[in-house]
Amino acid sequence: MGTGHGCGELYPELDTPALVVDVDVMEGNLAAMAEGARRRGVALRPHIKTHKSPWIAHRQLAHGAVGVTAAKLGEAQVMADAGITDILVAYPIVGELKLRRLEALLDMARVTVALDSLEAAEPLSRLGRRRGEPIPVYMEVDTGLRRLGVPPASPEALDLARKLAALPGLRLAGITTHGGHVARARTYQELARLARAQAEALVATADMLRRAGLPVDQVSTGSTPAARFELEVDGITEIRPGTYVFYDANCVAQGVVPPERCAARIVATVVSRPAPDRAVIDAGSKTISPEAREDGSYGIVVGRPDLILNRLSEEHGIIELHPAARGSGGAIADLAVGHRLAIIPNHICPCVNLSDVLYAARGGRILWEIPVAARGARR
Amino acid sequence: MGTGHGCGELYPELDTPALVVDVDVMEGNLAAMAEGARRRGVALRPHIKTHKSPWIAHRQLAHGAVGVTAAKLGEAQVMADAGITDILVAYPIVGELKLRRLEALLDMARVTVALDSLEAAEPLSRLGRRRGEPIPVYMEVDTGLRRLGVPPASPEALDLARKLAALPGLRLAGITTHGGHVARARTYQELARLARAQAEALVATADMLRRAGLPVDQVSTGSTPAARFELEVDGITEIRPGTYVFYDANCVAQGVVPPERCAARIVATVVSRPAPDRAVIDAGSKTISPEAREDGSYGIVVGRPDLILNRLSEEHGIIELHPAARGSGGAIADLAVGHRLAIIPNHICPCVNLSDVLYAARGGRILWEIPVAARGARR
Repeated sequence: MGTGHGCGELYPELDTPALVVDVDVMEGNLAAMAEGARRRGVALRPHIKTHKSPWIAHRQLAHGAVGVTAAKLGEAQVMADAGITDILVAYPIVGELKLRRLEALLDMARVTVALDSLEAAEPLSRLGRRRGEPIPVYMEVDTGLRRLGVPPASPEALDLARKLAALPGLRLAGITTHGGHVARARTYQELARLARAQAEALVATADMLRRAGLPVDQVSTGSTPAARFELEVDGITEIRPGTYVFYDANCVAQGVVPPERCAARIVATVVSRPAPDRAVIDAGSKTISPEAREDGSYGIVVGRPDLILNRLSEEHGIIELHPAARGSGGAIADLAVGHRLAIIPNHICPCVNLSDVLYAARGGRILWEIPVAARGARR
Repeated sequence: MGTGHGCGELYPELDTPALVVDVDVMEGNLAAMAEGARRRGVALRPHIKTHKSPWIAHRQLAHGAVGVTAAKLGEAQVMADAGITDILVAYPIVGELKLRRLEALLDMARVTVALDSLEAAEPLSRLGRRRGEPIPVYMEVDTGLRRLGVPPASPEALDLARKLAALPGLRLAGITTHGGHVARARTYQELARLARAQAEALVATADMLRRAGLPVDQVSTGSTPAARFELEVDGITEIRPGTYVFYDANCVAQGVVPPERCAARIVATVVSRPAPDRAVIDAGSKTISPEAREDGSYGIVVGRPDLILNRLSEEHGIIELHPAARGSGGAIADLAVGHRLAIIPNHICPCVNLSDVLYAARGGRILWEIPVAARGARR
């Protein structure tokens, strides 16, 4: 993939803004994670929310994934439509409308559901009884994100697990956590510590439940930056990274990968130079999710550490000289109207959700369009 | 529209999360803005980026709008497809691929293009010459947003306007600004001051250009919170509000409208109660754009000032007790799993862009689905 400076126009055949995926870089990422899991005998169940694309999900399975993880029923449905038959829906299924959709999905695929309450479990229990086939569930444990889940290795965890195991029509297949809080780490060392701690907390929960005679087959963690550390923790049986397919600027900032491992980049065009120290590109918050890092940046301007993308409106991205480059005679005079830049966004998943297609590229040339088939599947 | 508490389940026929538009409230908003513009003899050219829906654009025209404003060619194309023939593309058209698309669009509609550079103007000039019909352009003026535009009433403005007026195949039809910086106002008084100042700066620019013998037919401002103040400034000939069709929590916070005027609301379901002081809803940043207000909130929880939606991940919204309600015995025990809430998001435009359809409702019942036909049209 071009670096966006000094080597000709980026993808001149492409209208901008566009999200371009270098398939060779992507394949390298898929292979490396699969190999890491295989070496430890841990199952890989990638979260497809990052790419939302059947084609890429099938590539993950080809690399050895045991199945996929989906955020919502809608994503799971797209994957089942694409012939994928082993799906974890990492979300409680709540409400009559969703239960009916789950029932239809169960005719197409083996579906496991994550949940953290009896209120979410009881309707599943009734559905499983009616179908004569228990529905596998993972109990969600909160290892630090403070989102969903019971506290790890706690009386609440034991109590809920006991109740889940006792429900007919349901099978407690494992426990799960999403260690999203590791993103708060400011150093690689802190990332390692947080990542190991949440995986160990999940294993400690599994141990507690097993001591109480409860079945816990799967001990499943899910986070790209945490994945390599999770694999070091004995007792983890499954990992569910999503972002690793592309990686992103947040991963780079955390020291997880160098920018070269980032397979997905926004290609944008300079549409205005309203001031000597400001360039405006045609990628705004409809293209790059408005999630700034602490330095105010919305992504890496590829090959241009002297620049910072530090303001977004819906259709505009504002690029200025990076504060660190201001004193040193840095200038952005070369960014003429029409010039193209590549941006590695901070958080790639929502950027994919903002795109109807991903442009697959190899060697700086577009190969084809990958439909983001599960874009917007938020139900 | 239901208030989300004490009056039965919200839209039980609807799967969640969903974006629901109360059409009676919307019609009231459309009528009020149209009447305000009519009374002052000012043209109304609504920005369709807020709704991205031909049906609503046609309602705006029925209320007296002279045409529409679109953010990008893609939005304009959807509007032209729907039979709308007078469109301002409020964005520079840069690059050969976009010029070809503009050319096709010019066969369908009268298109005006906003721009702020000779680099963006010259290719349009060539296109207009080739077609034998000048392309109308607005010159963009930066009245404080620091995004696009030449400085108001400046030598740069005069210089660019002269060059634009001299280009063959182009017609300098007016000048334009987007006073998006008025959103920074912390009080209604400051909003009024900033809104008037930017409109006056635009009028001063028009006066300067006219004194130099340049034609400036249209003096066009665009901002919902600023609109009522812009209408008070003599010399403004056109306003381009977008958000007014629905309004949003940012408008409420600025004192522009009360919450009852907000026509679009996210309906969400509680999917987990992982802690006594925390409820999790199924609307995350794939539904509610992650643009927090200063108090950390992502929107108004309708009818529940004791609650704050203060954290979003992609598929989860975290609701806690509002700090102001914490000491006073407030509790969120009533938010059981399955309970539905309505959220007025801070910024409605990106939330519409995250939705495939808007659910039109009247009297608490869903009428039909309005396709968001220009969703994702960011090119």
